[in-house]
Amino acid sequence: MSEDVWLSDDQQRAWVKFIAVVELLPGVLDSQLQHDADLTHFEYFTLARLSEAPLRVFRMTELASATNASLPRLSHVVSRLEKRGYIERKSCADDRRATNAHLTDAGWEKVVATAPGHVGTVRENVIDPLTAADIADLDRIMGKMLVTLDPENRFRAQR
Amino acid sequence: MSEDVWLSDDQQRAWVKFIAVVELLPGVLDSQLQHDADLTHFEYFTLARLSEAPLRVFRMTELASATNASLPRLSHVVSRLEKRGYIERKSCADDRRATNAHLTDAGWEKVVATAPGHVGTVRENVIDPLTAADIADLDRIMGKMLVTLDPENRFRAQR
Repeated sequence: MSEDVWLSDDQQRAWVKFIAVVELLPGVLDSQLQHDADLTHFEYFTLARLSEAPLRVFRMTELASATNASLPRLSHVVSRLEKRGYIERKSCADDRRATNAHLTDAGWEKVVATAPGHVGTVRENVIDPLTAADIADLDRIMGKMLVTLDPENRFRAQR
Repeated sequence: MSEDVWLSDDQQRAWVKFIAVVELLPGVLDSQLQHDADLTHFEYFTLARLSEAPLRVFRMTELASATNASLPRLSHVVSRLEKRGYIERKSCADDRRATNAHLTDAGWEKVVATAPGHVGTVRENVIDPLTAADIADLDRIMGKMLVTLDPENRFRAQR
């Protein structure tokens, strides 16, 4: 194995910081949401994406794309959210083989009540420490990584 | 709640890309390591940090700092690695209340055998899509986030 496989010192320094953020950030997002709203970050993210959809409805396949999740993972989380009354699943009127996820009124109210605290956590830990130039750099760099991480462009974050 | 709590369009675009990477990257790292070495990324990261330590020994508290982990989380993972023969825990000669984690010869060989495939995955998904300027930007931006995510500077990534 030739030496050029290994990271340079600059690359190693950036990688060690980046992986620390990747390890620490989900715990910070989950803690605030669990404590204040009894939701994981992925549950909140699912409800929030539905709250932005036209008529607050998504096909399950589209919702998976919007939440960076596989369909089995999403289905599992939607089942939990359905039991809590935040989402209803119904078969799609246009295509009986497809299933739609609908945000209920209770789900909408949950998002409205939960969003400010969550956005505050995102601001505090991610956005507010950065300048406008940093935000543009972050957008560009994460876009480049997503080309490899999501080669089939399945997830909406790239669009 | 005033409007200025919400993210601007630029901030929202960068955040959606960033959180997609934070969601997707750990699965990519874990999959390669599980498949090729039967290790999670956190198990590998723990062995790799030990392999870089003087005499391949760390106090458990120092190893927690080097792996961005709480001591209970680290202890749990070190127990699993000890059962597999990669780490040995011994009480510290200088301070009987402290415990040291030692990388065994089998642990060292495991890191040597596993590192090239892991580094290849990091290169492919994170490093190679970026220019040298991007790497410098990533280092600066992640450093700023770590100031808030790790306010007590407990983890080594900031140093």
